[in-house]
Amino acid sequence: MTTLSLDATHDPLARSWLLSANQNGGAFPLQNLPFGVFRRAGSGETFRGGVAIGDQIIDLRALADTRLLTAEGAEGVRAGSLPALNTLMQLGPGVWSALRRALFDAMAQGSAHESALKSCLVPQSAAEFSLPAQIGDYTDFYISIHHATAIGRLFRPDNPLLPNYKWIPIGYHGRSSSVAVSGQKFPRPQGQTSAGGAAPTVGPSSRLDYELEMGIFIGAGNAPGEPIPLADAEDHIFGLCLLNDWSARDLQGWEYQPLGPFLAKNFATTISPWVVTLQALAPFRAPFTRPETDPQPLPYLESPQNREAGAIDIQLEALIQTANMRGRGAPPQRVSQTSFRHAYWTIAQLVAHHTVNGCNLRPGDLFGSGTQSGPTQAEAGSLVELSKGGTQALSIGDERRTFLEDGDRVIFRGWCERPGAVSLGFGEVYGEVLAARNL
Amino acid sequence: MTTLSLDATHDPLARSWLLSANQNGGAFPLQNLPFGVFRRAGSGETFRGGVAIGDQIIDLRALADTRLLTAEGAEGVRAGSLPALNTLMQLGPGVWSALRRALFDAMAQGSAHESALKSCLVPQSAAEFSLPAQIGDYTDFYISIHHATAIGRLFRPDNPLLPNYKWIPIGYHGRSSSVAVSGQKFPRPQGQTSAGGAAPTVGPSSRLDYELEMGIFIGAGNAPGEPIPLADAEDHIFGLCLLNDWSARDLQGWEYQPLGPFLAKNFATTISPWVVTLQALAPFRAPFTRPETDPQPLPYLESPQNREAGAIDIQLEALIQTANMRGRGAPPQRVSQTSFRHAYWTIAQLVAHHTVNGCNLRPGDLFGSGTQSGPTQAEAGSLVELSKGGTQALSIGDERRTFLEDGDRVIFRGWCERPGAVSLGFGEVYGEVLAARNL
Repeated sequence: MTTLSLDATHDPLARSWLLSANQNGGAFPLQNLPFGVFRRAGSGETFRGGVAIGDQIIDLRALADTRLLTAEGAEGVRAGSLPALNTLMQLGPGVWSALRRALFDAMAQGSAHESALKSCLVPQSAAEFSLPAQIGDYTDFYISIHHATAIGRLFRPDNPLLPNYKWIPIGYHGRSSSVAVSGQKFPRPQGQTSAGGAAPTVGPSSRLDYELEMGIFIGAGNAPGEPIPLADAEDHIFGLCLLNDWSARDLQGWEYQPLGPFLAKNFATTISPWVVTLQALAPFRAPFTRPETDPQPLPYLESPQNREAGAIDIQLEALIQTANMRGRGAPPQRVSQTSFRHAYWTIAQLVAHHTVNGCNLRPGDLFGSGTQSGPTQAEAGSLVELSKGGTQALSIGDERRTFLEDGDRVIFRGWCERPGAVSLGFGEVYGEVLAARNL
Repeated sequence: MTTLSLDATHDPLARSWLLSANQNGGAFPLQNLPFGVFRRAGSGETFRGGVAIGDQIIDLRALADTRLLTAEGAEGVRAGSLPALNTLMQLGPGVWSALRRALFDAMAQGSAHESALKSCLVPQSAAEFSLPAQIGDYTDFYISIHHATAIGRLFRPDNPLLPNYKWIPIGYHGRSSSVAVSGQKFPRPQGQTSAGGAAPTVGPSSRLDYELEMGIFIGAGNAPGEPIPLADAEDHIFGLCLLNDWSARDLQGWEYQPLGPFLAKNFATTISPWVVTLQALAPFRAPFTRPETDPQPLPYLESPQNREAGAIDIQLEALIQTANMRGRGAPPQRVSQTSFRHAYWTIAQLVAHHTVNGCNLRPGDLFGSGTQSGPTQAEAGSLVELSKGGTQALSIGDERRTFLEDGDRVIFRGWCERPGAVSLGFGEVYGEVLAARNL
């Protein structure tokens, strides 16, 4: 896995000539350079790839037009200038790395191209975003053992963690069509619910929840029938984003047996506009460890490198802002904070497991990590956990919540920090619940 | 639903100037006109839409170039000449119907355009096929109560049919990337299996099965948040095909709790090249009935029209040809026969249920019906049912099978027949199991 090595683009002393990139603790320093797809808001322009730096976006189409970058950097910037990043994703880590290096050099203090690059910048505040890629298939995993245990306890009190959990990175297929970029607003979903064995009724969900997840974008895919071995897995991952897997718990409880969640999940999924590459995340890798009493992964899910640095320490927080709070200008309130390092499986293991049967991945495919809950109650990644199955309301401003109400906005933020490295962020993803429509 | 009415294109006395279309009991008479995507085999030509008639294909791109068709027929033929039928699917039943009528007239005896149309024909025997559409999302349902009961008995002997089954058209999301057109060959999938609570091992599936299903292609989609009411549902369906949902039962048994089937299903799904439109199927509609002792559908899944003619009587059969049989030129052997009319839910109910929560469908989305097993053992749509969970081998030629062996080819055929109507067919879909690759 080349994704673990540090090079000049991780130099903690490097600074950009763009002053907003050098702000201490900012999400988008010179060392981050995440990818997204944008245009000027309200312009009707064609969407194209961009790279966040400071409070600006490097417009990759404008940069391609300058013909400033040469060799592999040029190939990457041309691919990145398209209205979806699938082509760039397909090109693989050699091209991603060359493009990263070229952008880093061009934006670094002392670059000979400062004035040319300046003409390619668009303020983030002036942009609107599209999905980073055309998502062919979306797979949602379930890799927080803390979440799986807490949810299992609610759905199956006698049997919270099933026997396969510690052997298989449990996952299921989700819905691509309803994945949207940050800012998604959707009516409260309707559907069948059944209270305690009674005949079901149809109506708006009354247990609407969020799920705090990481999204993982696949880069180059694999041919049908050809598994991706664990050792190569990270070379097939383009990068990570934030993901909210909105969930209607009451619909889920009634429908999910025996084939899994369906309408409880497929009405909306929201991701952040920025995809942080694995290369940018290299300084924040962490050992992947398990309790010694747990079964160790089977050979196809096991390697020294995966054990040494398979995890990623990404700080995550979930916030809620009710319509009332928004009305009076009150900021969102944090309801939990956790880290992606608590995951029971690594992102490389997800790729190796997903393809072990020959299933083919395609560039732009999206994985969700599953709700990232940490070991303590304050680190729970969903309301159903924070409210203990809806029995204990949380205080949000001067309101109370067990589940989401109409007008609630849910915001996730993610960032990485570590002594000796420049902090970087994922920005945020938000979505908002509208009132149910009449059926 | 306009899809139920008969018009001139269903006239049982109508004949084509193309003699092979008039063969009694042939799959592709003038009254069928199913859509697919093809090119001349080995030609490297661009794929384009085509319509099967007799032993020929009407090349829609060649027909578009003639500019013979006018008005809505022209719009349809232009859309149909593209390398995937998504655009035609999006245009909706008005355009589909106009195109059907135009093709019917052009191919009917006495047509003024016989010589022009002749220049647009390609023999089916000279063609190779692509998927009919770019499939955005693939959803697999579970609408045979006979199959659900039989499978449930194997996985949960104490609890075969879950309480939600008679209320909800149970479905889950499948994998789009591994759906391929007839002729798909795939290595035997590998994965984790666990025998009776033992620690799992990794290896080739030893319980590889087929599932005899109908595929349903979505035409025009719906906007996010806007359900498709049952009354409009069939106007959003482009047509039906045959579908084999290959399944690894041993992988499934170990992985499927709590989030449903995943690697047990996503290595391969095979569909027939030809999509038969709902309009062509109008003469074969049947009442949708349930035992009076069963719960009746909730209001959003209920209408007089759905009761009167919601079902479709499509004869289905599954055949197996082993490598040995193929080697000595022996034909495939039928292992079961059933009808789609046994389904516990209608295709309109699938659309209404899938969208009741606001989930958006897109043109070219594919539904699988779930395995279509009839009420008797001889009508079972999978080997796990026919072999009673692998305990009773079937005789195939001079071999025995509980599950599929390497080299086995599975073939499905489908057709409709009814007194007073011209019979029509779906043609066939086949796929073949290759030996497992080394991990």
